[in-house]
Amino acid sequence: MSDNVKINRGLKGVYFERSGVSDIDGARGELTYRGYSIHDLATQSSFEEVCYLLIHGELPTAEELAGFDARLRAARVLPDPVHDIIAACRDGHPMDVLRTAVSALAALEPASRDTGEDAFVANGIRLTAQVPMIVAAHQALRNGRDPVAPDPALGHAANWLWMLKGEPPSEAAARLADVDFILHAEHGANASSFAARVTIGTEANLHAGIVTALSTLAGPAHGGAAEDVMKMVREIGRPENAAAYVRAKRAAKEPVTGFGHRVYRREDPRARHMRDGVRQLGEEMGAPEWYEILQAVVEAMAPYARHGLNVNVDFYSGVIYQLHDIPMDLYVPIFAIGRMPGWVIQCIEQRRSNILIRPLTLYTGPDPRAYVPLAAR
Amino acid sequence: MSDNVKINRGLKGVYFERSGVSDIDGARGELTYRGYSIHDLATQSSFEEVCYLLIHGELPTAEELAGFDARLRAARVLPDPVHDIIAACRDGHPMDVLRTAVSALAALEPASRDTGEDAFVANGIRLTAQVPMIVAAHQALRNGRDPVAPDPALGHAANWLWMLKGEPPSEAAARLADVDFILHAEHGANASSFAARVTIGTEANLHAGIVTALSTLAGPAHGGAAEDVMKMVREIGRPENAAAYVRAKRAAKEPVTGFGHRVYRREDPRARHMRDGVRQLGEEMGAPEWYEILQAVVEAMAPYARHGLNVNVDFYSGVIYQLHDIPMDLYVPIFAIGRMPGWVIQCIEQRRSNILIRPLTLYTGPDPRAYVPLAAR
Repeated sequence: MSDNVKINRGLKGVYFERSGVSDIDGARGELTYRGYSIHDLATQSSFEEVCYLLIHGELPTAEELAGFDARLRAARVLPDPVHDIIAACRDGHPMDVLRTAVSALAALEPASRDTGEDAFVANGIRLTAQVPMIVAAHQALRNGRDPVAPDPALGHAANWLWMLKGEPPSEAAARLADVDFILHAEHGANASSFAARVTIGTEANLHAGIVTALSTLAGPAHGGAAEDVMKMVREIGRPENAAAYVRAKRAAKEPVTGFGHRVYRREDPRARHMRDGVRQLGEEMGAPEWYEILQAVVEAMAPYARHGLNVNVDFYSGVIYQLHDIPMDLYVPIFAIGRMPGWVIQCIEQRRSNILIRPLTLYTGPDPRAYVPLAAR
Repeated sequence: MSDNVKINRGLKGVYFERSGVSDIDGARGELTYRGYSIHDLATQSSFEEVCYLLIHGELPTAEELAGFDARLRAARVLPDPVHDIIAACRDGHPMDVLRTAVSALAALEPASRDTGEDAFVANGIRLTAQVPMIVAAHQALRNGRDPVAPDPALGHAANWLWMLKGEPPSEAAARLADVDFILHAEHGANASSFAARVTIGTEANLHAGIVTALSTLAGPAHGGAAEDVMKMVREIGRPENAAAYVRAKRAAKEPVTGFGHRVYRREDPRARHMRDGVRQLGEEMGAPEWYEILQAVVEAMAPYARHGLNVNVDFYSGVIYQLHDIPMDLYVPIFAIGRMPGWVIQCIEQRRSNILIRPLTLYTGPDPRAYVPLAAR
């Protein structure tokens, strides 16, 4: 092999495919789904509508939305063996349990093997409805409770909180979960979506792609930011400690978690919506100090912001989950619930103009050498 | 986005990383593991030794090999809940069941969460021993039999056949399975190994990487060739039908399965060892016609060989499995058993000099557009 080969480590800056789903303008700090600004969607849309938009390409009419929502609600069913499998893995990390259950659905539901486009859409809708059920069922079972049956009267986000906590969420809490899911729904060629495309590139079915996405999201460098921020906030403890914390981190050349993103050079456009949510929810619940600590960290980081170290979306989401008394190991599964439609449509796109994704590694190991039989070693 | 952006579809020809594990010279039709020719390894080595070589970088001394083999044999244990999970998914495709069980092992074995290098090695050895147990246990359970306990007196390949069939394999059959595993052990940045690296790039643990690899191998365009060839051989039926079959395929511009490979421009160097195996096993078992059909297809394809359409490794492996009376849906799981050490070492390499693997998609969707509220649609 030539020594002059260019190595694109991390595939940074390498375009591998076209996509009509989301556009990230990292320099300007803008994000659109199918041409619609994330700001309009976060303030005016619903998760169900965003799912429809991402998967079908256009905003639905009232009738189309009602039909899509009905499909989602009808899909809130888990085959019995899935509950047994979740129970068998009860003490595992929720991401491992979620991935195991989704993988089992592929084995249990014969429709998962169909690789036609309609099947990808139908299976995508089913899995979008089933993933929050699995997370909530695991949380119930590991706490010695029976899983809460879905409430057909509730939308996707409100039903998630209902199944998780066994009590009806406030309108504000349900809306905040809805916005959280909208903001996490899709984000270009991130590692989990890209890995799912590699799986689909071998003509695998949708379930296989989603299992790969779940495996990849579970890595701390991808889905772990919200949990890391929550740990930081607990360590800081009070707003007035934030400046010293940031100074110490910078002096030690350690990153301050929740800042910076591979593609955004300005503020992550999703962050402001979660920021508003943290402030409102904190006030509503009589716990404004979490928001104050976060803002004190942001102020202390301001001198470094011109280097692109702006907050990303997960800087705020952990605190929202904390206010809901959700354990930290559910933060990544919540990310997964929101990201489902993005994974589904990227798998659909990959399937449409499919190609085996097979790059190269440059061999740097030993030169050819003669085999020495065991007796002569 | 600029229209001048170069799209590297399928990442064909793009180098994303260095690797010291295997070298594929597609133009010359050569493959080495750690500098050793695949021909030497296939004729003189064992799967256990190749595992050691791939994972540790050098051929073992007799003592090192004995220690490594002892670790593999000691790891032939499945936690009880895994058998329950396999039973719950009994009717699923064996690849879905295998992936579900490996995913469950991550939830059941706390050591799976450790992401240090020693943990990757230890978990890699465990999984290499457990994967054939899962496949054999599923095959037993779906046929109403109890799983066969591993035989600590047998090596990896012989024990696999023992667990699968419940009777001791002949020496020739065990050696052929051993060679099969050696030939499939590692193959550069193929789609499953690459996808596993994307997962590890997020700092995920080894089990997550292996689950991704299994999801990706399950796609027919990656792991499905052996099954496709077996279907073709059955369709052809007799050697004298091969020429007409090939003519019809070429006339219809359809590919003849088992020929050609993304990276080899000459014969896949692994193919000849499987070819010898098919011939010998077929004679031993009194069923030489399968080999004769395969060779008749090769002869009929000869005019196209100068275009690079040479047989690949999976042209012969399906017939070997057929001679062992192994059902077709186990062909990909057998590939997975062999590929384990390759996936493990590539995950270890990725972990060592880790980076988030996150390429880009070129946005080709709608221009920015104003959100229209639902009531106005």
